[in-house]
Amino acid sequence: MSKKNNNQDKLLIFALGGVGEIGKNMYVIQYNNDIVVVDSGLKFPEEDMLGIDIVIPDISYLTENRDKVRAILITHGHEDHIGGLPYVLRHLNVPVYGTKLTLGLIEGKLKEAGLLGETKRILINADSEIQLGAIRASFFKTNHSIPDSVGVCLDTPEGIVVHTGDFKFDHTPVNDQFADLQRIAEIGSRGVLALLSDSTNAERPGYTPSESKVGDELEDIFRKSTQRVVVATFASNVHRIQQIINASIATRRKIAVVGRSMVNVVGIASELGYLNIPEGMLIEPEEVNKLAADRVVILCTGSQGEPMSALTRMARSTHRKVDILPGDTVIIAATPIPGNERYVGRTVDELFKLGANVIYGPGSVSGVHVSGHGSQEELKLMLNLIKPKYFIPIHGEYRMLRLHGRLGESIGIDKENIFIVENGDTVEFQGGAGRKGSKVPAGNVLIDGLGVGDVGNIVLRDRKLLSQDGILVVVVTLSKQDGTILSGPDIISRGFVYVRESEGLLDEANRIVTSTLNKLMNDKVNEWASLKTNVKDALGRFLYEQTRRRPMILPIIMEV
Amino acid sequence: MSKKNNNQDKLLIFALGGVGEIGKNMYVIQYNNDIVVVDSGLKFPEEDMLGIDIVIPDISYLTENRDKVRAILITHGHEDHIGGLPYVLRHLNVPVYGTKLTLGLIEGKLKEAGLLGETKRILINADSEIQLGAIRASFFKTNHSIPDSVGVCLDTPEGIVVHTGDFKFDHTPVNDQFADLQRIAEIGSRGVLALLSDSTNAERPGYTPSESKVGDELEDIFRKSTQRVVVATFASNVHRIQQIINASIATRRKIAVVGRSMVNVVGIASELGYLNIPEGMLIEPEEVNKLAADRVVILCTGSQGEPMSALTRMARSTHRKVDILPGDTVIIAATPIPGNERYVGRTVDELFKLGANVIYGPGSVSGVHVSGHGSQEELKLMLNLIKPKYFIPIHGEYRMLRLHGRLGESIGIDKENIFIVENGDTVEFQGGAGRKGSKVPAGNVLIDGLGVGDVGNIVLRDRKLLSQDGILVVVVTLSKQDGTILSGPDIISRGFVYVRESEGLLDEANRIVTSTLNKLMNDKVNEWASLKTNVKDALGRFLYEQTRRRPMILPIIMEV
Repeated sequence: MSKKNNNQDKLLIFALGGVGEIGKNMYVIQYNNDIVVVDSGLKFPEEDMLGIDIVIPDISYLTENRDKVRAILITHGHEDHIGGLPYVLRHLNVPVYGTKLTLGLIEGKLKEAGLLGETKRILINADSEIQLGAIRASFFKTNHSIPDSVGVCLDTPEGIVVHTGDFKFDHTPVNDQFADLQRIAEIGSRGVLALLSDSTNAERPGYTPSESKVGDELEDIFRKSTQRVVVATFASNVHRIQQIINASIATRRKIAVVGRSMVNVVGIASELGYLNIPEGMLIEPEEVNKLAADRVVILCTGSQGEPMSALTRMARSTHRKVDILPGDTVIIAATPIPGNERYVGRTVDELFKLGANVIYGPGSVSGVHVSGHGSQEELKLMLNLIKPKYFIPIHGEYRMLRLHGRLGESIGIDKENIFIVENGDTVEFQGGAGRKGSKVPAGNVLIDGLGVGDVGNIVLRDRKLLSQDGILVVVVTLSKQDGTILSGPDIISRGFVYVRESEGLLDEANRIVTSTLNKLMNDKVNEWASLKTNVKDALGRFLYEQTRRRPMILPIIMEV
Repeated sequence: MSKKNNNQDKLLIFALGGVGEIGKNMYVIQYNNDIVVVDSGLKFPEEDMLGIDIVIPDISYLTENRDKVRAILITHGHEDHIGGLPYVLRHLNVPVYGTKLTLGLIEGKLKEAGLLGETKRILINADSEIQLGAIRASFFKTNHSIPDSVGVCLDTPEGIVVHTGDFKFDHTPVNDQFADLQRIAEIGSRGVLALLSDSTNAERPGYTPSESKVGDELEDIFRKSTQRVVVATFASNVHRIQQIINASIATRRKIAVVGRSMVNVVGIASELGYLNIPEGMLIEPEEVNKLAADRVVILCTGSQGEPMSALTRMARSTHRKVDILPGDTVIIAATPIPGNERYVGRTVDELFKLGANVIYGPGSVSGVHVSGHGSQEELKLMLNLIKPKYFIPIHGEYRMLRLHGRLGESIGIDKENIFIVENGDTVEFQGGAGRKGSKVPAGNVLIDGLGVGDVGNIVLRDRKLLSQDGILVVVVTLSKQDGTILSGPDIISRGFVYVRESEGLLDEANRIVTSTLNKLMNDKVNEWASLKTNVKDALGRFLYEQTRRRPMILPIIMEV
């Protein structure tokens, strides 16, 4: 501790992303002039963010305090924890800390973004301790659906803050990647001021099953399948991939890896030693047809029914290298993320139509998927291991945070010491006491193509309008001298009606615009604004009466 | 039988809607010149049908054979079975048969559509028998999430065809509405040629729990709640509503009914004797605040998070009559239909923020919802009761039909006698043998406002494009004499970029259009088509380079 606590000394904790939502995780722990950031994720756009590619947090608090930011600590290599880095690092060049696999995945991203050279990357392991100004960071191993996940313990002069990262408790983990129960318990016994804990599965009673259960089921299916087996899963789920490899070995099958991100992750993970793949196990997709059908596994992306993914292309018979054949077994080893159900359903339908036997559905039915996040009993176990004085549920929609908060109450945390926060809400600690502080700027930054933040509410509102009933453009050229109509009005529509079947309607629309304009001319109304408003109103009224639709109407007046 | 079978005699079975999808159910059974239609439903638009309100089947087969259509038999009063009637009856004035509650709900619709007077409506009950040309129709009671549901038995000269309607087997039904197991068994013992059976829950192992389980749970929650209880459920789920009434009676609460369709259904169902509501039980929403909080239940719509529904408005604090107060218990007695998860999630979040205790989630967790469709064991029970020679799974997406087909195999139906069909695929029966026949026209008719079928693929493609990156309109006025630019080019964008922050981009775009046009003029290119194409290409290329976006570009050339 560089100086004694005084009235000005303060610990601040807040989220810039990750609470009230699933995605774009970014948490900030600040003690006086030292800021530590945990994670830097992206979010995929919600259904009302039309045309948006990805969403990242507003980091203006960090850029305004750039001299105080000591580090970005990354808990694990999932997109909602690392995907924002290429954007954030462009504005905030600070060191990034991560475990081996996590850094491996980050480096791929930074290379693509041209930021690899200028970014300081620091490798940590579960035994690392790092001094970041007044804050000392250490780590503990957790179980999650990607190897090398850690939780973070931050010793501050005000007390210990623990951030769990994403976690479950898997007592029979793949590749012996045990969570470090002893260290977590030991941190708890030192007395923890505040816990930030993963709320993803706070709605689920009981325990999340072990990943190794999936392995047994996979081997069983592989063995019973008399033809090829196709398995789709998340590329980042290295444990799952290891189990697919193990089941393939046990059933004497070779594996073709298909899909860009799957090839990428299998490459990085095996290079770094997180995947154990025997020599000669992998074959090229082109070699699939050279082997007997019951000697082949195709490991691919597309478990969410993503339109451009390998499995979706195979299901639509548009994949360049792999066809689905009648009798193939296709395993979708994942549960649809809310919003993707229909995409997955359609993929399953197409696969069935091709004659495949498809194994899919919730993990509890299919047996080929388990969640990477702990359910209620595991969340209580974490709470009881850490025994924090204050509790801030993170990583979840509001209702999940709320239910997680209740679990905190149930194990004996004071209700007033549980903070359900929104992005930007700060919790302040002084003299061992915490309270809600002021708000810092927080929000969504929308990325559309190369544009970062140039699409806002007005643009989105227009896209929404355009998507519903289309647009009518009304163009007319007026004489500068006397305001008479020299050309037009011409009406062009897109996304409104099928023009060939609606000629009568559009002709009548034209007459209405012409008579509206003529009337205005006679009345000597010739300010453009009022011409436009009148045309818009008259045409809008007519079209609504005729069609009960409200297309966008764009009047354009040219003068020569 | 009016005449002996001969080589021309033929029984045809096909779906115009309802297979390969959930929704717009419409099945056709034709024996020679007699057509019987079962159900006439609508479907809600899929996510790529932008701006569309509802979808109905293409009925051109029926209108082309209008003199043969004897009846539309309706199995029950859900929208996906009756919602198409107002559109279909406009083109096909045939008698509609239904049970009391079903006709009650249909009459409300026809009144709104101004079709009540001209439509022949014929009341049936489970004992009715009707001769429809060569086809004799009878009915059997089933259990479903709306009272007065029936299955249909069609005696044709070629054999018996059974259509289950939507069903589950509930051995402890609400209001003693038992399925008629004896009659179903008796039909089976007569020998059934073909069974058409509900596949909605063919993916679910086991049995669907009884509706009465929900009643116990509701009463328990009502009793434990110390303040007001708000329950949202499907308006048409009259059994559920009865149980909410019963739980209210047991806990001495009065009920305010809120939401247009809920008020409507409670009115019709109680008038027709399907709801048992004691005198003085119902109160007006305005009276809610006059009673003690623990004496009140608010029964409302909005269980799917529909933006305009009562519960959603309450959750957003925009309902005119009802506020959610801290401590209120809100029960969402429904499971989100795929695609609605996020809407429901958002409503739950808002309710929690208002301080309500929200009970929600899958029925297996919340206890306050069960499905109205039978699971695999019930589907097998139906198959074994009917023991059909041929089996056509209906009412489901392709994968559900396929899995239902497998259940048919598992109880001993020949694989070749199971037909997995798409809308319009006919199955032909002659001399007791069935085979796939030719296709009849079938498809989606999209309804957008007053327009029926005037929105097709081109319009939808344009709406999609517009929704992604917006539109740029480029207008220029040229001289008729010499082709010089008299005015413009003007560029107006909507839904593309936030204009104030992108002036430079749009200025540069303008320069590119001008120079493109000038170059073409110099080269004496002056056909409009090629001017437009060149402007579109040059501008599109520039914008993609600068923004990685592809807005729609609409060049408009005026001549004076």
